[in-house]
Amino acid sequence: MKTKALVLHKAGDLRVEEREVGEVGPDQVLLHVGAGGLCGSDIHYFWDGGIGAIRVSEPIILGHEAAGTVEAVGVNVRTVKPGDRVAIDPSRPCGTCRFCLEGMMNQCENMDFHGSAMRKPHSQGLFRNRIVVAERQCLPVGDKVSLAEAACMEPLSVALHAVNQAGSLMGRRVLVTGSGPIGALTVAAARYAGAQEIIATDIADAPLKTAIRMGATQTINSAKQPDRLATGFSAHKGWFDVAFECTGVGPVLPSLFPVVRPGGTIVQVGVMGETSIPVNALVGKEISLRGTHRANTEYALAAALIRDRRIDVTPILTATLPMEQAAKAFELVRDRNTQMKVQLSFTD
Amino acid sequence: MKTKALVLHKAGDLRVEEREVGEVGPDQVLLHVGAGGLCGSDIHYFWDGGIGAIRVSEPIILGHEAAGTVEAVGVNVRTVKPGDRVAIDPSRPCGTCRFCLEGMMNQCENMDFHGSAMRKPHSQGLFRNRIVVAERQCLPVGDKVSLAEAACMEPLSVALHAVNQAGSLMGRRVLVTGSGPIGALTVAAARYAGAQEIIATDIADAPLKTAIRMGATQTINSAKQPDRLATGFSAHKGWFDVAFECTGVGPVLPSLFPVVRPGGTIVQVGVMGETSIPVNALVGKEISLRGTHRANTEYALAAALIRDRRIDVTPILTATLPMEQAAKAFELVRDRNTQMKVQLSFTD
Amino acid sequence: MKTKALVLHKAGDLRVEEREVGEVGPDQVLLHVGAGGLCGSDIHYFWDGGIGAIRVSEPIILGHEAAGTVEAVGVNVRTVKPGDRVAIDPSRPCGTCRFCLEGMMNQCENMDFHGSAMRKPHSQGLFRNRIVVAERQCLPVGDKVSLAEAACMEPLSVALHAVNQAGSLMGRRVLVTGSGPIGALTVAAARYAGAQEIIATDIADAPLKTAIRMGATQTINSAKQPDRLATGFSAHKGWFDVAFECTGVGPVLPSLFPVVRPGGTIVQVGVMGETSIPVNALVGKEISLRGTHRANTEYALAAALIRDRRIDVTPILTATLPMEQAAKAFELVRDRNTQMKVQLSFTD
Amino acid sequence: MKTKALVLHKAGDLRVEEREVGEVGPDQVLLHVGAGGLCGSDIHYFWDGGIGAIRVSEPIILGHEAAGTVEAVGVNVRTVKPGDRVAIDPSRPCGTCRFCLEGMMNQCENMDFHGSAMRKPHSQGLFRNRIVVAERQCLPVGDKVSLAEAACMEPLSVALHAVNQAGSLMGRRVLVTGSGPIGALTVAAARYAGAQEIIATDIADAPLKTAIRMGATQTINSAKQPDRLATGFSAHKGWFDVAFECTGVGPVLPSLFPVVRPGGTIVQVGVMGETSIPVNALVGKEISLRGTHRANTEYALAAALIRDRRIDVTPILTATLPMEQAAKAFELVRDRNTQMKVQLSFTD
Repeated sequence: MKTKALVLHKAGDLRVEEREVGEVGPDQVLLHVGAGGLCGSDIHYFWDGGIGAIRVSEPIILGHEAAGTVEAVGVNVRTVKPGDRVAIDPSRPCGTCRFCLEGMMNQCENMDFHGSAMRKPHSQGLFRNRIVVAERQCLPVGDKVSLAEAACMEPLSVALHAVNQAGSLMGRRVLVTGSGPIGALTVAAARYAGAQEIIATDIADAPLKTAIRMGATQTINSAKQPDRLATGFSAHKGWFDVAFECTGVGPVLPSLFPVVRPGGTIVQVGVMGETSIPVNALVGKEISLRGTHRANTEYALAAALIRDRRIDVTPILTATLPMEQAAKAFELVRDRNTQMKVQLSFTD
Repeated sequence: MKTKALVLHKAGDLRVEEREVGEVGPDQVLLHVGAGGLCGSDIHYFWDGGIGAIRVSEPIILGHEAAGTVEAVGVNVRTVKPGDRVAIDPSRPCGTCRFCLEGMMNQCENMDFHGSAMRKPHSQGLFRNRIVVAERQCLPVGDKVSLAEAACMEPLSVALHAVNQAGSLMGRRVLVTGSGPIGALTVAAARYAGAQEIIATDIADAPLKTAIRMGATQTINSAKQPDRLATGFSAHKGWFDVAFECTGVGPVLPSLFPVVRPGGTIVQVGVMGETSIPVNALVGKEISLRGTHRANTEYALAAALIRDRRIDVTPILTATLPMEQAAKAFELVRDRNTQMKVQLSFTD
Repeated sequence: MKTKALVLHKAGDLRVEEREVGEVGPDQVLLHVGAGGLCGSDIHYFWDGGIGAIRVSEPIILGHEAAGTVEAVGVNVRTVKPGDRVAIDPSRPCGTCRFCLEGMMNQCENMDFHGSAMRKPHSQGLFRNRIVVAERQCLPVGDKVSLAEAACMEPLSVALHAVNQAGSLMGRRVLVTGSGPIGALTVAAARYAGAQEIIATDIADAPLKTAIRMGATQTINSAKQPDRLATGFSAHKGWFDVAFECTGVGPVLPSLFPVVRPGGTIVQVGVMGETSIPVNALVGKEISLRGTHRANTEYALAAALIRDRRIDVTPILTATLPMEQAAKAFELVRDRNTQMKVQLSFTD
Repeated sequence: MKTKALVLHKAGDLRVEEREVGEVGPDQVLLHVGAGGLCGSDIHYFWDGGIGAIRVSEPIILGHEAAGTVEAVGVNVRTVKPGDRVAIDPSRPCGTCRFCLEGMMNQCENMDFHGSAMRKPHSQGLFRNRIVVAERQCLPVGDKVSLAEAACMEPLSVALHAVNQAGSLMGRRVLVTGSGPIGALTVAAARYAGAQEIIATDIADAPLKTAIRMGATQTINSAKQPDRLATGFSAHKGWFDVAFECTGVGPVLPSLFPVVRPGGTIVQVGVMGETSIPVNALVGKEISLRGTHRANTEYALAAALIRDRRIDVTPILTATLPMEQAAKAFELVRDRNTQMKVQLSFTD
C-alpha cells in the first residue's frame, strides 16, 4: 500500500511524494492520519533548512503533531481496534539506555522522534495519509473531540511537561511570556494544575485574547507597554512564584529576574542560543532557571485531557489546509495577528 | 569602654579608629574579638570602593567573618558565659518580614548584616577589638580549635548553604570550579555531604593542592589544561550530577553545560553581572541553574563542624596579620599563588 | 458593647451568654459574624466534652469556621474597610517560636486557635454576634458569594493543606476515603490541583452524590460493596498514586495499602488513636504515610477560591439554624443521610 | 563444571550438594565465590522455613550477600577481567516493566533476586563455590579490601537506600533503633551522608559498641534504660529530624512518634506485620512514615565506598565459617551478644 507524504528536500522545497506504507507487525497499528499541526521545528526546517546546529541534510517527511483513525491492528494489539480515533505519540525512546532506565525517556540517547532531523538518517514524520506505528504510540481520544483537537496532544504534553518542572503550581502566581501555541497551552496547563493567577504576555493582541480564553487571568501587551512588567511586579523582590519563558527571544529571559520572587523558578521553554542573564540577581535572589525539553510521561495525560475536554484546545486552532497546500500553510502560520496553530488535513 | 575599629572611608583609605563599645543589654554579649577573615566583599570594598551596585558611601567598619571570647553577658543570657569561645553569626534578619516567616532569613527585606554596605546607613562590621552582639549570634566552638579556625564559620556556612541548594549529594559526582576559600570550603562541604567524586578546578596550582587537602578526589589546572574538562567529561551528555561555580568569572559558567548531565544542577556561588549562557543546552538537557546567597540555617552546623573538626579548615588559613597592618593584608590576599584565607588578629 | 456568644460549659451544656466585645485596637477589626459552620471538634466537644486527650475544662465559646462583615477598623488597618465581607482566619500563631520561623505556623508551640480547648485557658471561638480580630485574620471574599460559603474557608484550607502534603497532583490517580465535609472538600481541592481521576468512598449514598458534584470521577459505597476497592484496584501492586484518608475510622487506613502504588503516598487527614497498619506492605512497596494538621499558608488561597467560586462549596451546605437553636444543629449534623455541613446564623 | 552449593530443603534441612555451573555466555562472568554473609531472610528461611507469607516450598540455594574473584569472562565483557575481585549485585530486574522504566528497579514486577523464595520457581542464591552471573552484576572492589568486606556490599546498599528515602541528611539529628548489621550500616550511611548527630539504640551492649565504631555519636541501651528516649528527646515536640527503625519489633515504631519533630520522617527499615501506631501523633505533628525495600541505584556506590574504605565495614564482621559448617553458622548468628554479621567461606 502506498501513502502520500509531505517531504522536505531543502529549505522551501516541500513536495507531496508517494511512500510505501509497509506491513503491520504483530504489535503495530495502521492509522489513517486525519490532522497534523505545524510546529516550530517544522517551520524552521521549512524556512531555514534547520534549527541551530540541526540541519535538514536529506529528504525528511515533516510532522510530529498528528491524530488519526485506526484502520488495522496487528495480532497482539489489545488497546485499540479499527475505527478508534487516536492521538499519535511521536516519541520512540530506546527503552534500554541509561536515561530510559532512569525514567527520563525524553533524554534517551537513541531517541527516534518522528519528523526530527536531529539524527541521521533523519526520523521520518507524520505528515502523510497513512502510517504504521507501534501500539503504544496510539492514545485513544474517544468520539467527542475532533481529530484537529486530538492533534494538539503533543504540544499540550510539552506544556504539561514544562509545568511539571516547576513542582506543584497550586495557588501559585504564574507568568507566561509569549502566547503563541506553546505559551497558550502552558497557560491552560498551569490553570489545570491549580495556579491562582496567570499573567500572559505577547507583543500582539490576538494571541493575548487566546490566552484569556485558555485561562489567563490578566494579559500584558509588552510591545505597547514595555515597562508594565517591571513597574507592576518588581516590588518586594518580585511578584511571581514561577515564570514560563515561551518566546525564545533573547532579551525576554533577563527581564524576568526582577519580577520572580526569591527562591522562585523560571522554566525556560523556548529554545535559543547564547543569551545573557543577570547572574547577580540569580545568585542574590536564589532563583532557579530550569530547562524543559519535549515531554516524558505526559503524553497519556494530554490525550485524556483533550478526550474529556478538561482542557479545551479549540481556541488555538485557527486554520486547516489540505496537505497539498502545505507551502501556503507555512506562509500563513507566520502571521501572528491571525494565526495560532495551523494544521493540515490528509485525505486519500 | 572604647574599642579600636578598622574603618574604611573610601577605596584604599582604611584607618584604625576608636569607637564606643556600648552597654551590654539583657540579651546581649560582650566579646573580645580574636580573629577576623578577609572576604571577597571586604576586598572589593577596599580596592574598588564597592561591588557592583553596592557602594561604600560613608565610613564603614569592615568584616563579617570573626570569632572571639566572651567577656561579659547580659542578665538573660543562658547559652554562653564569660571565657567561652564563639564564632559570630553576622546575620541579623528582622524576624518579621514575609521571607523571615517563610524560613528564608537570608532573603530578609530588612537584613542588617555586619560589615555590609548594601543598605544605608551601612551595617558596621566585626573588625574591632570588642563588640556587643546578641546572644543568638554567639555560636560556641569549644576549646579544641583556634579562633582563627572559628572565624571560618561564616564562609563555611556559605559553602554548606550552597550544598543545600543541590539536594542530597550522597554518591554524587561533583564539580567545583574555582578553588579559592569558598571553592575549597565547598569541596569540604560536598565531601561532608557524601559526594562520591569531587573534581576541583583553578588556574593556579596552589589552591588546587589545598582543594585536595579539603577532600577533592581530582583537580584540573584549567590554565594549563583548558580543554581537559570538555574532552574528559562531556561523553554521554555529561559526567557531573552537580557543579558549583565558585569563580564568578564570566566564561566559566557556560563551559559547565556540556559536562553536567541531563537533569543535573549547576549552583552558581560566585557573583558576577550579565553573563552569557547556552540556553539551548539548558533547555535540551533540562539543566537547573540555581543561585545561592550567603547562608540561612547553616551557621550552627558550620560552628559545630569546626568545633568538632569534622571539617578541618586549617588548610585554607595562610596568613594572619595584626589589625594595624590591615592594608598589607589586603595586598597579600591578592597573591593567589601563596594565599587562601588571610586573617587579622586583634589585641588590646 | 455586648455580644451574644455560644458558650459550652460541659458536654451537652451549651448556652447563649453575653460577653463584652472589647475595644478595636489600631491593627484590629470589628466584625459582625454572619455564618459559622459546625466542625468535627465542635461536635466532639458538644457530645463528648472533648476529643482524645483534649478536654473542655472551662467554659469555651465554640467555633472556628466563620465569616462576617466589617463594622469598624482600627487606625492602622489598610486591607479592609467597613462593609467588606470577610472569612475569618482562626489561626493565631505566635510568629516567634522555632516552628513559626521555619514557616510551619500550624505547628506553632504557642498557637492560639479560636475555639480550641487544646490549651488552657481555652482559646475562645467565633460563634458570637460580634468579635474583634486582627486585620491579618480578615480575608476578603467579595460580594458574589454568601457568608455561608465564605464560612467554608477554614475547612477548605484544611483540604488544600492536605493536598499540599502530597506534592503535585497533576495527572495523578487519587482516592479519597470518607466523603463528609472534609472529604468532599478534599475531592474539590484535588480536582483543583489537577488530579486526573478521583475516586471517593463512603458508607452512605448521600455524601457520595455530593462528592460527584465536588469533582469525583467515580464513587464507591463501601458499605454496599465492601470488596470493591480491593478487587478493582489492587492489580499491578496498586492503582492509586495518592490516597487521602478522611474517615478517621481505624480499619479504613490498612485497607489502603493494597491499592496504593509502590512509592505512592497516603495522606492521613482524619484523626484517630492507636491504629494497626500492615508494616510489611508499607516497607515492601515503599509507601509514604503522612499526617496533615489544619492549614498553614493555605487560608488566603481558600478565601480566593471561594471568592471567585473556582471551588464551589455550595453542594456541602445542607442546613442553617439560628444560634439560639445550636443544640438542635448539633443533633441534626449527626444525620449523615441528609447533612454535610450544618451552619449557624447570627443576628442581633 | 560442577560447584558445591548450600541448598535448603526445608527449615533446618541444609545440605551441601553438587550443581552444574553452566556455560559462560557472551555477556557473562564466571566467579569463584570467596565470602557470603548470612542475612535476615536466610536466617528466617533456615529456622522458620520462610518469612511471613513467603515460604520455602522447593530446594533453594541460599545467599544474596557475596563476593568473589573472576575466573573467566564472556567475549563481550569489558568491565572486568580474570583475577578481578568483585562484589555481586544480587538484583536482576527485568528492565521492561512499568517500575523498571520509572527507575524503580527494586519494585520490578518480575524481579529475580538471588536466594529469594518470593517467586516460584525460587531464585537460586549465591552460597556456592562457583557461579555464572551477568557482567553488570559484577562490581569491582579493588585489591585493598578483603572479600569478606566486599560481601557486605549488599547490606550496605540497603542502608544507603534507606538513607535515600529521607532526603538530604546533612546536619540532621538522626535516630537509629536497632544496631544489628543493618542498623549499624545505617549508622555508617547516615554518617557518610553528613548527619550531625546519630543516636543508636539496642537492647544489648555489644551491638551498641559496634554502632559507636560505625559513627554513632551516642547510644542508648533500651533494655537498661527503657525511658531514656522518651524523657530525653520529647521536649519541644521532638528532637530528631529523621528516625530509621531497624528492629522490626512491633512496640518500637510507636515509641518514635514522641521523639521525632513536626514535619520529620520515620524510615521503616525492619519488616514486620500488622503494627499499631499513634495516628493522632502522626497527624498532629505531620510526620512522614516511609518504607524502604532493598536497594535500587545504590549497589555501585556501596561497592565503591567499601573499595575505598570510605565506609569501613570491618567492625560488623564477627565470624567466618566454612560452608560445610553452615548449620553451625546459623546457630552462631543468633547470639547477639557476640555476633553481628556471620559469613561463610567457600573453597574448592
